[in-house]
Amino acid sequence: MMDRGRLEAFSDGVFAVAITLLALGLTVAGPGHGTLTHQLAERWPGFVAYLISFFTIGIIWVNHHALVSNIKVVSRPLLYLNLVLLLFVVLVPFATGTVAAYLAHGGFDARVAVAVYGGTLLGMSIGFGAMLEWSLGEGRLHVPVAADRRWPARVRFTGGGVVYLAVIGIAFLSAPLALGITGAVAVYYVFERTPAITKPDD
Amino acid sequence: MMDRGRLEAFSDGVFAVAITLLALGLTVAGPGHGTLTHQLAERWPGFVAYLISFFTIGIIWVNHHALVSNIKVVSRPLLYLNLVLLLFVVLVPFATGTVAAYLAHGGFDARVAVAVYGGTLLGMSIGFGAMLEWSLGEGRLHVPVAADRRWPARVRFTGGGVVYLAVIGIAFLSAPLALGITGAVAVYYVFERTPAITKPDD
Amino acid sequence: MMDRGRLEAFSDGVFAVAITLLALGLTVAGPGHGTLTHQLAERWPGFVAYLISFFTIGIIWVNHHALVSNIKVVSRPLLYLNLVLLLFVVLVPFATGTVAAYLAHGGFDARVAVAVYGGTLLGMSIGFGAMLEWSLGEGRLHVPVAADRRWPARVRFTGGGVVYLAVIGIAFLSAPLALGITGAVAVYYVFERTPAITKPDD
Amino acid sequence: MMDRGRLEAFSDGVFAVAITLLALGLTVAGPGHGTLTHQLAERWPGFVAYLISFFTIGIIWVNHHALVSNIKVVSRPLLYLNLVLLLFVVLVPFATGTVAAYLAHGGFDARVAVAVYGGTLLGMSIGFGAMLEWSLGEGRLHVPVAADRRWPARVRFTGGGVVYLAVIGIAFLSAPLALGITGAVAVYYVFERTPAITKPDD
Repeated sequence: MMDRGRLEAFSDGVFAVAITLLALGLTVAGPGHGTLTHQLAERWPGFVAYLISFFTIGIIWVNHHALVSNIKVVSRPLLYLNLVLLLFVVLVPFATGTVAAYLAHGGFDARVAVAVYGGTLLGMSIGFGAMLEWSLGEGRLHVPVAADRRWPARVRFTGGGVVYLAVIGIAFLSAPLALGITGAVAVYYVFERTPAITKPDD
Repeated sequence: MMDRGRLEAFSDGVFAVAITLLALGLTVAGPGHGTLTHQLAERWPGFVAYLISFFTIGIIWVNHHALVSNIKVVSRPLLYLNLVLLLFVVLVPFATGTVAAYLAHGGFDARVAVAVYGGTLLGMSIGFGAMLEWSLGEGRLHVPVAADRRWPARVRFTGGGVVYLAVIGIAFLSAPLALGITGAVAVYYVFERTPAITKPDD
Repeated sequence: MMDRGRLEAFSDGVFAVAITLLALGLTVAGPGHGTLTHQLAERWPGFVAYLISFFTIGIIWVNHHALVSNIKVVSRPLLYLNLVLLLFVVLVPFATGTVAAYLAHGGFDARVAVAVYGGTLLGMSIGFGAMLEWSLGEGRLHVPVAADRRWPARVRFTGGGVVYLAVIGIAFLSAPLALGITGAVAVYYVFERTPAITKPDD
Repeated sequence: MMDRGRLEAFSDGVFAVAITLLALGLTVAGPGHGTLTHQLAERWPGFVAYLISFFTIGIIWVNHHALVSNIKVVSRPLLYLNLVLLLFVVLVPFATGTVAAYLAHGGFDARVAVAVYGGTLLGMSIGFGAMLEWSLGEGRLHVPVAADRRWPARVRFTGGGVVYLAVIGIAFLSAPLALGITGAVAVYYVFERTPAITKPDD
């Protein structure tokens, strides 16, 4: 019913705007609020959170691309699963800004902030996993994924979700540790070498 | 005079930006304004309004796609009708933010806020209905819509408009009820199964 | 050196973001700043300015499309002229917000605000006119514009510029009148029927 | 593994949003904060920084286009190098806003602001240089760059990086001078005539 091109164009637009809005939270208060050096130093959690969120969205975009390029027919259910994924992508700047505002503050609020952040990334992961499950259905991919390749594909694409679930719990033990784990997930995915779902034969 | 591609690209851009800006209204005030848990709980109308607006814009995008993919010639009148639709799409973040700010506050202001929200969705619906009417004209669709399929198509695509008109009135009886109805419309359209105008034969 | 596709994609992105950011200025102050009805009524200049800017950018987008679709070779000078046009497109939300903030306030500030607005639209018009002049050069259009059609094309596409120049002056006599004239230009262009440069033969 | 089209679409989206968000920092405080003329005059550093950043991003976009159009295979490493470039593109509105806020203020803060600005442009330049280096590898370009053309290409595309490195140091001697140099780099690239990497034969 719909060509893949516009699904990609709309999704790319949302990814691009969300990734750019991340930096909107990085503002300094201006003259009269302490030296600029001090303000920038004080905002380090904002820069760390920006970096993690930027690459996390970037990686989801790369994976989204790989998956969608292999999908044969774009149907309504897929469009709505895609909207669920984007629903959480769009929340990432909000969750990132909340972490930036509360992390250095410490205490229970910092833990809640990182838990909200982990929950947002978990939602993104679930949305992507749902799109993957749908696409594994009979006749939906150009290059089908062999039965024995499905679990590796699931682990590769949605393994992050399990970690993000753990992050929500860990946040209540240590907010910086939990945030660090989300950063480690991003680093892992950048260097990870499992063959992508687009090329199950390589 | 214009190929469909750029109409789609520009519209997709506006849809993508508008849907992402929805989340800009979801900010917390930062340390020193009560606990974060309390602030997040207090902002529940913002999250509900975000959810409804996100899927309402998403559905309009899906329908826009279905309709435009069937249009043969992109003429100036169609471009301007499309701009009318986008004029209201762009207002959705403003209307959503107004609901988020006033709903929990209650009283007459909450009712006005939801009425403004309903009016914005009504405008979007009218813009889309006008594009549909234009496209039903002689020789404008690749796959023409048979005479006896036109009313079902109108009902399917613009039926929401009648509900949104009612929402404006209902808002003055109960703001939460009126907002709930706009959410119900979104849920209905996600699960609705009427054949799309792109494939009048299925 | 560059295909037209990416020039269009980038320009469409800027047009789409700028037109959507227009509505960012439409915020209400929230509970505790007078009734919502009062706040909305007080913000009428913001809604009027939003409406005029929305259709003015929309019309420039339509004309940009018509012109670029007829251009044969995308060279570096054209890319930079296009950037000059976009430089002013991007300023429109700022100029619109300034008009919204000062128009009802009246006095000299309101006049300066509308003059700045007129100047921004003038810059947009000059940027577009420069792209048109460049494209009238030997061998740059798919369908060349006959010598006797060039002046009508210039008048059609950049006639608005002369009016915007006048608007800057008129703003210092009457800000609302000058703003009204920019609205009249938008209405005129929507209904205007001069053949476009893409089809000099119709 | 991925077609070039979506890399371009996503990057164009980020460039377009970042270039449009530049103007978000250009707001006036509204009535009751001095005359509008005074406020606009006082904000001159904001307008200058906007102008420089707009053309600097525009030039990087033109060069990005030229380079990517010549790339044969889009692999994962290239996608991540592209994300590094975009990471800094997205920071430009933040860095520009910081310069706008502190330049007229003078003193050490103004110097830090311009140094942060230079560092952001340096990061952009390094990201672009890394993409260029990657693409010079065996079999990665449609039209290979001859051995004796590689250094001119490197100088042309990343020469700005050396200047931006110097800008960081110069900022601590004179903030306005350092900012002026970044403006001069933009002017130089607009008028520069070295053959692009897309056409090493002309």
